[in-house]
Amino acid sequence: MFELIRRDGLARLGKLETRHGTLSTPALLPVVNPNRPTIPPREMRERFRVDAVITNAYILRRGEWKEKALSDGVHRVLDFDGIVMTDSGAFQSHVYGGVEVSNREIVEFQRDIRSDIGTVLDLFSEPHHTRDRAEADVNETLKRTEEAAAVKGDMLLAGAVQGSLFPEVRERSAAGLSPLAVDVSAIGGVVPLLEAYRFLDLVRVIIAAKKGLTPARPVHLFGAGHPIVFALAALLGCDLFDSASYAKYAADGRLLFADGTRHVEELHELPCECPTCSSTTADDMRKSETLRAEHNLHACLGEMRRVRAAIAHGDLWELAERRCRAHPALLDALRELRHHVEFLERTEPVSRHTAVFFTGPETAHRPAAWRFRERLKTRYRPQAETAVYFEECARPFSRNLPISPRRLWRRANAVCLVKSVWGPVPVELDEMYPIAQSVVPRDLDAETREAIEVFFQQFVRGSGIREGFLWEGAATLDRLPGPPRTEEEDVARVRAVMGMQFGLDAAEALLAGKVTVETSPRTHKIRVVRVDGEHVASMRAHDGLFTLRAAGAKRLHAGLPKPRWRVTVHADSAEFNRKGANVFAKFVIDADPELRPLDECLVVDPEDTLVAVGQAATNREEMLAYQSGIAVSVREGMS
Amino acid sequence: MFELIRRDGLARLGKLETRHGTLSTPALLPVVNPNRPTIPPREMRERFRVDAVITNAYILRRGEWKEKALSDGVHRVLDFDGIVMTDSGAFQSHVYGGVEVSNREIVEFQRDIRSDIGTVLDLFSEPHHTRDRAEADVNETLKRTEEAAAVKGDMLLAGAVQGSLFPEVRERSAAGLSPLAVDVSAIGGVVPLLEAYRFLDLVRVIIAAKKGLTPARPVHLFGAGHPIVFALAALLGCDLFDSASYAKYAADGRLLFADGTRHVEELHELPCECPTCSSTTADDMRKSETLRAEHNLHACLGEMRRVRAAIAHGDLWELAERRCRAHPALLDALRELRHHVEFLERTEPVSRHTAVFFTGPETAHRPAAWRFRERLKTRYRPQAETAVYFEECARPFSRNLPISPRRLWRRANAVCLVKSVWGPVPVELDEMYPIAQSVVPRDLDAETREAIEVFFQQFVRGSGIREGFLWEGAATLDRLPGPPRTEEEDVARVRAVMGMQFGLDAAEALLAGKVTVETSPRTHKIRVVRVDGEHVASMRAHDGLFTLRAAGAKRLHAGLPKPRWRVTVHADSAEFNRKGANVFAKFVIDADPELRPLDECLVVDPEDTLVAVGQAATNREEMLAYQSGIAVSVREGMS
Repeated sequence: MFELIRRDGLARLGKLETRHGTLSTPALLPVVNPNRPTIPPREMRERFRVDAVITNAYILRRGEWKEKALSDGVHRVLDFDGIVMTDSGAFQSHVYGGVEVSNREIVEFQRDIRSDIGTVLDLFSEPHHTRDRAEADVNETLKRTEEAAAVKGDMLLAGAVQGSLFPEVRERSAAGLSPLAVDVSAIGGVVPLLEAYRFLDLVRVIIAAKKGLTPARPVHLFGAGHPIVFALAALLGCDLFDSASYAKYAADGRLLFADGTRHVEELHELPCECPTCSSTTADDMRKSETLRAEHNLHACLGEMRRVRAAIAHGDLWELAERRCRAHPALLDALRELRHHVEFLERTEPVSRHTAVFFTGPETAHRPAAWRFRERLKTRYRPQAETAVYFEECARPFSRNLPISPRRLWRRANAVCLVKSVWGPVPVELDEMYPIAQSVVPRDLDAETREAIEVFFQQFVRGSGIREGFLWEGAATLDRLPGPPRTEEEDVARVRAVMGMQFGLDAAEALLAGKVTVETSPRTHKIRVVRVDGEHVASMRAHDGLFTLRAAGAKRLHAGLPKPRWRVTVHADSAEFNRKGANVFAKFVIDADPELRPLDECLVVDPEDTLVAVGQAATNREEMLAYQSGIAVSVREGMS
Repeated sequence: MFELIRRDGLARLGKLETRHGTLSTPALLPVVNPNRPTIPPREMRERFRVDAVITNAYILRRGEWKEKALSDGVHRVLDFDGIVMTDSGAFQSHVYGGVEVSNREIVEFQRDIRSDIGTVLDLFSEPHHTRDRAEADVNETLKRTEEAAAVKGDMLLAGAVQGSLFPEVRERSAAGLSPLAVDVSAIGGVVPLLEAYRFLDLVRVIIAAKKGLTPARPVHLFGAGHPIVFALAALLGCDLFDSASYAKYAADGRLLFADGTRHVEELHELPCECPTCSSTTADDMRKSETLRAEHNLHACLGEMRRVRAAIAHGDLWELAERRCRAHPALLDALRELRHHVEFLERTEPVSRHTAVFFTGPETAHRPAAWRFRERLKTRYRPQAETAVYFEECARPFSRNLPISPRRLWRRANAVCLVKSVWGPVPVELDEMYPIAQSVVPRDLDAETREAIEVFFQQFVRGSGIREGFLWEGAATLDRLPGPPRTEEEDVARVRAVMGMQFGLDAAEALLAGKVTVETSPRTHKIRVVRVDGEHVASMRAHDGLFTLRAAGAKRLHAGLPKPRWRVTVHADSAEFNRKGANVFAKFVIDADPELRPLDECLVVDPEDTLVAVGQAATNREEMLAYQSGIAVSVREGMS
């Protein structure tokens, strides 16, 4: 059972239950070669705090180990009391051209040696395979997966997505795997891509697979063990990684780092702070394969912790964008993401707590930026036909400015727009995520400047704005406290933000009546929105978006038809949610397909009676797929 | 005495001799507060391998420590047997508005407590100071420096460059400091810039200071202790850093990383592989300021080792470019460097051993790229009036191409140019640094594409090319072995590369006569160039540039007047150099101002007799300034 704890992009902090404990993901499973354990598994557990390893059942079954493995179990063979996953020999068939065991035999063997997670003997799709070959192999792999699922017993089972470089074949392979009784979805056939630095192809393969895979299972990227790819692969929704790299690179004299590889012969000192590098010298490292393997494992585990912290923090995009500058081929992979932004947007949270950093021309194409621009087209209605616009984008560092759009907005009967990295920003929206949180350089690169201009022209063409004039001189998104605002401005801001967050019709439903706004005495920021005296919503300080209160939820529920903003739950669950209990994913019957992670939502029973209001943890597809974990954090029950 | 060992950009691996041992630079000196030592100095030495610390003489002189410091010395007070530097109280005057000690008193005190490196009581220039104030303070600081130099005894002394944000005042301050009898040049007044993330101003301040400073001393960036700036500051020629940040951030609950700061409260686990983070939990870290300080110190020291390794490896530009994406204000600082490229080029080595990675639109403006384009204007003469050019830039990953420029060059009577990130590349130059070593993404950002077009137009306008036509279809810089070349092609390549490396007239002098070329049987690359049967030069495999042999040196010497390509040495030295001994900097009388680090050069005696040929370690200005270390690695003496 896989449970989602936290998310960022397609990345997930999750928990996978096994017979030997819970694995926190994303996780790296070091490969243990029973014939040549560079670092003994017991040490991995004790010194490196490794919770799970992977070993090869094909090797165990052929060698001297077979009898012991069958009698004592794989954990005793490895001397490891954590989680043991086993591989099936599919990779050996890639390396050696074939294996002498059947799928059924190797799966039964994995079950019999009490592997926690076994693997189907899938057919490895090489990058050069033809489409016909790839399709045939995918079909055979799916058949084998069914066969394996039937004999696996209570062992968890990993099935594999194959399909070479053909996105449709990959997606179909994934879609075929999703309904089968496996517990881990692996993406196979990627080692040749990793070895050749074909990261662009890797991205395409992962995204195609993710499109077909159920979200309810962890995704294992088979053979990915260089820390240079962890951030990017995690961002795209890979949860498990396994690696023989730490040992193989060590054997070749190479040291792994999150930003590349160095050969030990070229080092005068050790460019790293890991325990091994902090206590030895480059000379020691040259002499000892074990020390090199220890460094490599530390570097991999450290980077995996950095990835997990970034997910928890909500800034994995920044980490991945930085890491992708470690090699030009990774930069190509990063630049590919804009072509998949519509898919990526579906799982992108609507908010985050931390500052949003611009890292380069790729930043303007993040899903959060794309969403802002898309919503501007459909969820924002300019309140005048004239626009004043500002050439300068958001500049959080310059505070001495001749004019602020906000003041101009007050004076002129015009829409005030600032051309920003995220798109044109009407001044009413300058306190909402991602605008207010953004930190952008003064001197933007030409690609970003071009993009800003294109975003602006697209918006103006579709917006009904007839006239526009450029405000000469510097401007900025003014987010200093400034002088108190007028009530009229505040209401316009509330209306605009609600429109962007919930849609124009929803904003109308929420605000029908006499609107009053309570602001912070210190910052003048909006705090509470009342309509006809009822507390409808509160604006959050950290992201400038609204939290719905009970009165607001009722208005939204009454004003908009099913399924909009709804999460429909089983009647059994509804009773508890009404009292304030969270909604668990397994009780969700349906939900608004427009819901995004961290969106406000209405919890309703099967008769569409409103029972609670809260914040969605996932989108609809995920709510329906997950069997455990929270779907909606309930804020107020309607008891 | 400061000795240069290796370099990259303005960065230097160096050695500073002190009474308590040799300090390898760049180095971080952790600040020890005697009243509150978060990590005892002895532990810093033993567990963290710290060679040098800095402590505050102003505090030692005021507090209970004074008597003990005077009687036992500062090393005993701190219980540290490595190098101890002391600060003077100038920073305290910044914080508290003044100090109750004179410059002479505090310098004498530092001398009397046996500090290894003492500091002048300079006047701290605040960023808001007027130009007049900054100038007056600089004058006073220079006076105090003279006073300090007179009383320092055999203590090493650090003088400071001040001047607020005024580049001319900074440069004048540095130029005033250079002739004085100090041992370390410090850049002061930067802490307010670091605290406010004003990295663009920091870059301008450092570059202005470097322009005025003698290269012969280490440069200390006072108060820079966040690892986020180490790579950039080292790239600009800062050699020493000191930091209380590791302790101060720890006291505030914050953890330092090379790519930013995290507050310990926001961490579920520790995103780092340092010994502290590898053996404790986020919970422990929350409870213990000491653990936080230990992590912070590991992170700082690890990053400093990474910087040193990058200098040794020759890829500090890549590291700095990556690090500058950790915060948008750093990106602004990075983008500033192109405005100082002419200054940066003077110390940029002409070659490196490793691959050159493109990291973003800033890469095309590195000094090595700028130099290539500049030399193309003055040191390359197209052999035809027609050009065939290729829209595609270097694509090391695509190998299935319909045509290669090299083959076309053979067929057509035209100059074949590939538009690349480094500028237009005539095919004859495609094996020389930085072209052949470069790795560039397929999908370049718009800023780089624009720059490529601008570089191309500038070149064509100035080159004498009359006609050009675009070759439709993909192309690449063909660096596969390919079919054997013709002798004519090889000679043209030799001529073109020699022109770029030594100048057009030098190439003529070197190649006057019957040129024959010996190529590698396997790669067909040029190995040996003979003229009239004499071995004139060899082309190096790693950078495609020439190593001069004795015959070549004689031709260059006979063909070009003094000072071109010369390093003039004292007669005493010449005798040894003639036998093959290296040239030490202190024996250099003069040198060609066009010489760049790693250039081939001719060693001559004061009568301009050629005594050796070798490779310059530095440019002229540095040769004349350094008092120790090698100026020319001699390859062949002319005995």
